[in-house]
Amino acid sequence: MYQFRFNLKFLFPAVVLSMVFVYAITPVTAKDATPAVKNYAVFNENGKLQRPTGYREWIYIGSPLTPNDMNDGKAAFPEFHNVYIDPISWTHWKVSGKFPDDTIIVKELVNVGSKEAVSGNGYFQGEFIGLEAMVKNKQLFPEAPGHWGFFRFTIEGSRQLHKRASAQDHENCASCHQSHAATDLVFTQYYPVLRAGKAAGDTGTGGM
Amino acid sequence: MYQFRFNLKFLFPAVVLSMVFVYAITPVTAKDATPAVKNYAVFNENGKLQRPTGYREWIYIGSPLTPNDMNDGKAAFPEFHNVYIDPISWTHWKVSGKFPDDTIIVKELVNVGSKEAVSGNGYFQGEFIGLEAMVKNKQLFPEAPGHWGFFRFTIEGSRQLHKRASAQDHENCASCHQSHAATDLVFTQYYPVLRAGKAAGDTGTGGM
Repeated sequence: MYQFRFNLKFLFPAVVLSMVFVYAITPVTAKDATPAVKNYAVFNENGKLQRPTGYREWIYIGSPLTPNDMNDGKAAFPEFHNVYIDPISWTHWKVSGKFPDDTIIVKELVNVGSKEAVSGNGYFQGEFIGLEAMVKNKQLFPEAPGHWGFFRFTIEGSRQLHKRASAQDHENCASCHQSHAATDLVFTQYYPVLRAGKAAGDTGTGGM
Repeated sequence: MYQFRFNLKFLFPAVVLSMVFVYAITPVTAKDATPAVKNYAVFNENGKLQRPTGYREWIYIGSPLTPNDMNDGKAAFPEFHNVYIDPISWTHWKVSGKFPDDTIIVKELVNVGSKEAVSGNGYFQGEFIGLEAMVKNKQLFPEAPGHWGFFRFTIEGSRQLHKRASAQDHENCASCHQSHAATDLVFTQYYPVLRAGKAAGDTGTGGM
């Protein structure tokens, strides 16, 4: 009995020491700003996806570009698409080569800023103008191909974004992804980062 | 005296508890694979920069593109440039709006893969074909503009990369960066991620 009380007496200092120890050994990187989340796709009770945040610190996978001047001025997607995958799902992809449940892939829309620079004529990113996302969730999308739901936060003609979004109808996004994307509705044929990282561990993360 | 010995007796269990606590609270993300490094730019004793690795898990800042067919078939930089900044320097940038000593910015070269997709005509990334980097280091480059050194790991006509690289002559890279880049030799005018993140804390990391 005495021993028990004795240990309790020292539990508090031990916990305080733990906190100091955690603080001291934690490396200072941008990634530490990322909260210790279970997953990065958060839905409310109505099944709406909460607008993701902090995704510019996730894993970048590619930037498809189909500008207006290469599509008779009527491109369906005239802007840069900066595409990111959440870090947890990236880790799974590196190990298994599959997208796990709760994978969220975001597509940030960036308009074409400049078309001429000292480096030559081309396309240079301008300003952020929109945000879309796809989320794999078997429970929420049991009937959808690959269990993917597609979401749009963009407010047309504005640089503001919706706070949350409902899943899009199948024909708006999923049908095209299902028909043309190389891997589980994801266009890996345009994403060398994903191809290199697939089940490759850290060897696919660059420079190895 | 007794009290002193008494405390020591409980130091070991406290440290063990600390270790367990650290393990338990550490979030499982891709970023945890990143070693707790002091900085990401490593030089050997001859001042050569070791080829960086794992940079596809750093912070992506942009993808300038100046393709051959927009430059009379003779583009100086005909490929996509995927540009990343190391996580430690990104954290500094978010706080101070400046690039600290030891900043490393890498530019991964990706050839143009496809020019046509279901989404329209455009440019889509193909395969990795090269790697360059710039490093800010006052001690190693005391006379260089902004203390930046520029490095090239690309092996022409090969997808292999040099293991290490010496700093380039001023006229190869620095002179153009010095004359045309908006912020401390970095082309922030083409990098909305850096502009949004500059001294903005986490509010510039997307979706906020």
